[in-house]
Amino acid sequence: MDRLEKQIDFLLEVDKLKTVLRRSSVTDGSRRENSAEHSWHLCMFALTLAEYAPEGTDISHVIKMLMVHDLVEVYAGDTYLYDEEGNKTKAKREHDAADKLYSILPAEQGENMKKLWYEFESCDTNEALFANALDRLQPILLNYTNQGSIWLENGITKQNVEEHAYRLTRLSHPKLRDFTLELLDKAVKKGYLNA
Amino acid sequence: MDRLEKQIDFLLEVDKLKTVLRRSSVTDGSRRENSAEHSWHLCMFALTLAEYAPEGTDISHVIKMLMVHDLVEVYAGDTYLYDEEGNKTKAKREHDAADKLYSILPAEQGENMKKLWYEFESCDTNEALFANALDRLQPILLNYTNQGSIWLENGITKQNVEEHAYRLTRLSHPKLRDFTLELLDKAVKKGYLNA
Repeated sequence: MDRLEKQIDFLLEVDKLKTVLRRSSVTDGSRRENSAEHSWHLCMFALTLAEYAPEGTDISHVIKMLMVHDLVEVYAGDTYLYDEEGNKTKAKREHDAADKLYSILPAEQGENMKKLWYEFESCDTNEALFANALDRLQPILLNYTNQGSIWLENGITKQNVEEHAYRLTRLSHPKLRDFTLELLDKAVKKGYLNA
Repeated sequence: MDRLEKQIDFLLEVDKLKTVLRRSSVTDGSRRENSAEHSWHLCMFALTLAEYAPEGTDISHVIKMLMVHDLVEVYAGDTYLYDEEGNKTKAKREHDAADKLYSILPAEQGENMKKLWYEFESCDTNEALFANALDRLQPILLNYTNQGSIWLENGITKQNVEEHAYRLTRLSHPKLRDFTLELLDKAVKKGYLNA
């Protein structure tokens, strides 16, 4: 198969991300969000909130990372942040999925895209930290907008959210951190989230 | 309202793009594609097919343009490429929508994001041309994968597709152009598209 055909096959395969459902709902509450539109939304977060990234952060690189950060879910499915059992097998499932998915591409291109995903996962560059912080912030905003229905349904507490948003609340810009912590307090007061 | 609050309001407002339905279906044919996941898919096209862009094209800029290229649809809705009546009023509706949407952001940031959209629309930079070419290619691939059901339903002919894919077929890399023209020929042979 020639190079372009492999690339087109890959682009059709990743279309499946549109059918992977996440736990959060879209803001009008009409249905659950899928991982493809979630990825787009996070890219918009990166573009719009770029000024809160650590100095020198390459926002274009953050955006590329966010575009691919959930791609492995086309085979591995979405694993809910608070699903303890699912999270035990997540790394293995996602690494196998990455090997399968990126092998559709021409070899060096597949390796480069896989590296972007590894960088997101390892969380040891400014770009990866900021991308991960946004990946925590976005569902908090969606859940708050939907009056916490997903938090309440799944018995999630403020402490659970804070623990899982560690990177966001501890490592990101003080403005984003304070905003998020205040939002969680408001959520508890309004009965959207258990204390 | 402070700067961050405006930015968060904007990010929640653009969430509505997830509920704007396009004409094309996702590859498994189960439902119509929405404009948010379409935008993400186009970003993946830009990243994967970057080598077919004109020399010197800034792919990060193409990606940013594709992220925002359909944002005005949160108020103006999606206008089908082949809807003659809808296309008469499209420019006015979308410009009004842009003024409304981008005014949610801090002024200079709203202006900069609006400029990205204008650039996409005016199609007079290499980045905008490539972004527009990908915006033509993606639905052709989805429609082909779904055995042309949307083309057939809407009475679209090969000539219609070629006319509207002008920028793709005339201005883009010969490999992408030839691939697309061959795909359209195959679509006609298989009965997915009227000659």
